Amino acid sequence: MPKKVDHTQRKKQIAEAAFQVILNDGIEGASARRIAAQAGLSLGALRHYFQTQDELLHFAMEEVKAGVGERMQAIINQPIPLLDKTVALLLELIPLNDQSKVEMEVWLAFTAYARHKPGFTLHDDQIYAVILHLLHHLDESKLLKDGIDKELETEKLYALTDGIALHALLDPSRLNLDMIQKVIRSQIQGICHPNT
Amino acid sequence: MPKKVDHTQRKKQIAEAAFQVILNDGIEGASARRIAAQAGLSLGALRHYFQTQDELLHFAMEEVKAGVGERMQAIINQPIPLLDKTVALLLELIPLNDQSKVEMEVWLAFTAYARHKPGFTLHDDQIYAVILHLLHHLDESKLLKDGIDKELETEKLYALTDGIALHALLDPSRLNLDMIQKVIRSQIQGICHPNT
Repeated sequence: MPKKVDHTQRKKQIAEAAFQVILNDGIEGASARRIAAQAGLSLGALRHYFQTQDELLHFAMEEVKAGVGERMQAIINQPIPLLDKTVALLLELIPLNDQSKVEMEVWLAFTAYARHKPGFTLHDDQIYAVILHLLHHLDESKLLKDGIDKELETEKLYALTDGIALHALLDPSRLNLDMIQKVIRSQIQGICHPNT
Repeated sequence: MPKKVDHTQRKKQIAEAAFQVILNDGIEGASARRIAAQAGLSLGALRHYFQTQDELLHFAMEEVKAGVGERMQAIINQPIPLLDKTVALLLELIPLNDQSKVEMEVWLAFTAYARHKPGFTLHDDQIYAVILHLLHHLDESKLLKDGIDKELETEKLYALTDGIALHALLDPSRLNLDMIQKVIRSQIQGICHPNT
């Protein structure tokens, strides 16, 4: 079904163009006209794939989530110690390279925008569930300290990760990779047995 | 100088109107026309106080910061135990009531908007400095555990606080006051001597 593949590829290409425009001009500057120009398409061609601006933005946000999900899955499959894997998974959420910076910009812009659009919902990003799962896994592997409240520690680690992601985006001069790694590793080590 | 007072009062009134419009329609809907209507002013009268939209938004953001700063100062002046005071100060940053929800909405909208405006700068909100100061104070009061890296723990507590604030705004159904208090208190207790 080559037609179908082309259709999906073209939508992804438009989403990529939308990322670039959002990165340059913010979501308020991400008009269909500019996104079409960035994608090298006519406005009519763009409208063939996305009838409305909100449809396009939703698709772009889903692309961000899918990209993060794929990279996290690749880390899950790596044969590395569980604590290192936990740190690596959370680092995927921090805007440290061009790819994750674009994702975070899109997320921030989309979140601020979608809150005031009736009918727009912010779908759960599954990060809470991933972190809770990691803590259960650390517990089963006897790495977690005794008596740890896993729900509470999941909230803390989730908040710390999203907070440091936000700070890394807004104040990259203070938060270099070394400090970000220390912050995340230190929080996880705090709930694990010493010398884990 | 009653004229001067009137001028300041009127600017504050316009900022309040801007908060309401941003809360309802997002920053992209916060046109000068709508803000003037909300404030009960003509567009010309509004332009007398703020020549440009960006001037108005900057002033609104400064009002948010001043409001948070005043409430924090009031808590600093309270004669309560230092650990409770630290928790209370950080809770002021979480959108738990109408006032702090508006502030967080304005902050989120302004941050997403200002990133793509040349000449707009996100001024340091001093929260990092406040938290570092609190940790020094806990240390001088012999409440902090030995060997705590205060810069690292400040980054962690700052990230956790902003992260939980963001989550409280985006997902209030999961994050009630009880859980938020537990999250913040638990993080602070983790760096203090037991039974502090």
